[in-house]
Amino acid sequence: MSWQQRQILDAGLRRSPSVAGPRSVGEMREGFAALMAMFPVPEDVRRTPTELGGRPAVLVEPLTEARPGTILYFHGGSFSLGSPETAMSLTAHLVRRTGIRAISLDYRLAPENPFPAAIQDGVAAYRDLLENGLQASSIGFAGDSAGGGLTVTTALAARDAGLPMPAAIVAFSPGLDHTRSGASMVTKEGADPFFTRDSMTANGRLYLGGADPDQPLLAPAVRADLSGFPPILLQVGTNEMLLDDSVRLAERAREAGVDVVLDVTAGVPHVFQSYVDTLDEAGLALDRAALFVRQQLR
Amino acid sequence: MSWQQRQILDAGLRRSPSVAGPRSVGEMREGFAALMAMFPVPEDVRRTPTELGGRPAVLVEPLTEARPGTILYFHGGSFSLGSPETAMSLTAHLVRRTGIRAISLDYRLAPENPFPAAIQDGVAAYRDLLENGLQASSIGFAGDSAGGGLTVTTALAARDAGLPMPAAIVAFSPGLDHTRSGASMVTKEGADPFFTRDSMTANGRLYLGGADPDQPLLAPAVRADLSGFPPILLQVGTNEMLLDDSVRLAERAREAGVDVVLDVTAGVPHVFQSYVDTLDEAGLALDRAALFVRQQLR
Repeated sequence: MSWQQRQILDAGLRRSPSVAGPRSVGEMREGFAALMAMFPVPEDVRRTPTELGGRPAVLVEPLTEARPGTILYFHGGSFSLGSPETAMSLTAHLVRRTGIRAISLDYRLAPENPFPAAIQDGVAAYRDLLENGLQASSIGFAGDSAGGGLTVTTALAARDAGLPMPAAIVAFSPGLDHTRSGASMVTKEGADPFFTRDSMTANGRLYLGGADPDQPLLAPAVRADLSGFPPILLQVGTNEMLLDDSVRLAERAREAGVDVVLDVTAGVPHVFQSYVDTLDEAGLALDRAALFVRQQLR
Repeated sequence: MSWQQRQILDAGLRRSPSVAGPRSVGEMREGFAALMAMFPVPEDVRRTPTELGGRPAVLVEPLTEARPGTILYFHGGSFSLGSPETAMSLTAHLVRRTGIRAISLDYRLAPENPFPAAIQDGVAAYRDLLENGLQASSIGFAGDSAGGGLTVTTALAARDAGLPMPAAIVAFSPGLDHTRSGASMVTKEGADPFFTRDSMTANGRLYLGGADPDQPLLAPAVRADLSGFPPILLQVGTNEMLLDDSVRLAERAREAGVDVVLDVTAGVPHVFQSYVDTLDEAGLALDRAALFVRQQLR
């Protein structure tokens, strides 16, 4: 247990200058892209621009022969920021450790395209994979933060559209409740170095676009029926306001008869897997996620 | 997902003849040993009788060079049945998959030796390992059912005795609450092919020996302070009255700032990992457990 690493990371995040005052979406996107560019992308993957379901995407492959299967990856960024590039370090580390190729989807962002645009793009991408001959049993959904939420809501919408379920869902620190009703929204506000209640509400408003958050596709942790879902792995840190999003989704999965691993690392922040170069727990968690994906994708 | 295998296993367990009427402890021990002897022990481990902390034990080693580390294993059997031999199949499969040796402890059983005899034996065994020069960081506790409970209560008692914490705790379907206050004690009674409320109460009474169950060493899932605990992996099926023992221990671990993986497989019974030859999920779960142990033991 590298508690020293966890503490150094937390202290470092708290020293990071926060940008004062409201910023435009464009400024936030630039800032997010600059922040995420600090995470190096491992060199032993090949990245190829492609298209999926009518949206841009990036195919990320191991340089050596890949294992069978495809990971449909959803990047993070509060539904209004980010792209396959901003999550490329994490995506590439997952590809390296699984040996399985990923396709990272550039889904439409809010506020230009609020809910349910991102989910529609996810379903279209998944349908495209299936129509190109991939078996659902060979496809896993993975994502971080808002993208972790999209792994679940895309699967919900796919099921409702009559598509078969993918073989696995892996979500890193997923956002799964736009009603923000989890206890950790209050109890973890001080411990979370990234978010505040206010910042979450402001970000969420962009995605909601006036929609009522109290519905399965916006609050799956409190409203979704997960019957028929494939095995789910949820990884989350205890220094996260989003902790209870995962805790409650795991509970719903158990109640729906779904295999679910709730994998909690103490004292680490939102999407701690990104810090693979400085935090031992990041690599350990990614190795557990990689085993889970390899077990489920046939 | 092998739902067909899960259903065949469940149906088979429900067809098993139950022995009518009350049985003596001796008869129950014989029946349990006969039942557990049905699980084949893999041949590629070496078993050597030994002694640990003044109790008999069995050293279980890979035939090839072992990885560093030691698993202190606690067998199941409701604290009144079983021995290292009755859990040997499961112990050996864990040794094979980790590559790490295990020492399985023949702790004292109730009713001849009720609470806290088994825990005292666990602490004595652990102390013996430490006094023989092993580092706590190289030792993991693992166990199933009652033995899964002993992984946690032995660690609690060891901490209270001033010993360092082991490096990991792995518990398969652990019993962690003699107050039997989990919701699953009621909601899962019909789904559980092994236990009833009455059978659990009767078994528990032998171990309690009149002790108040509402205390940390008898109900760690509701009373224990897990501060300072090492990473914990809990694996449990949804067809278990003991499901909420793991769910609530995981919650306490998160609250205490402890790394914890709550790994739930749907539609499978108590200690489903034993059915490794007929149930794919058993081997998958054991592989996840093996990775967890290897990650933590240095």
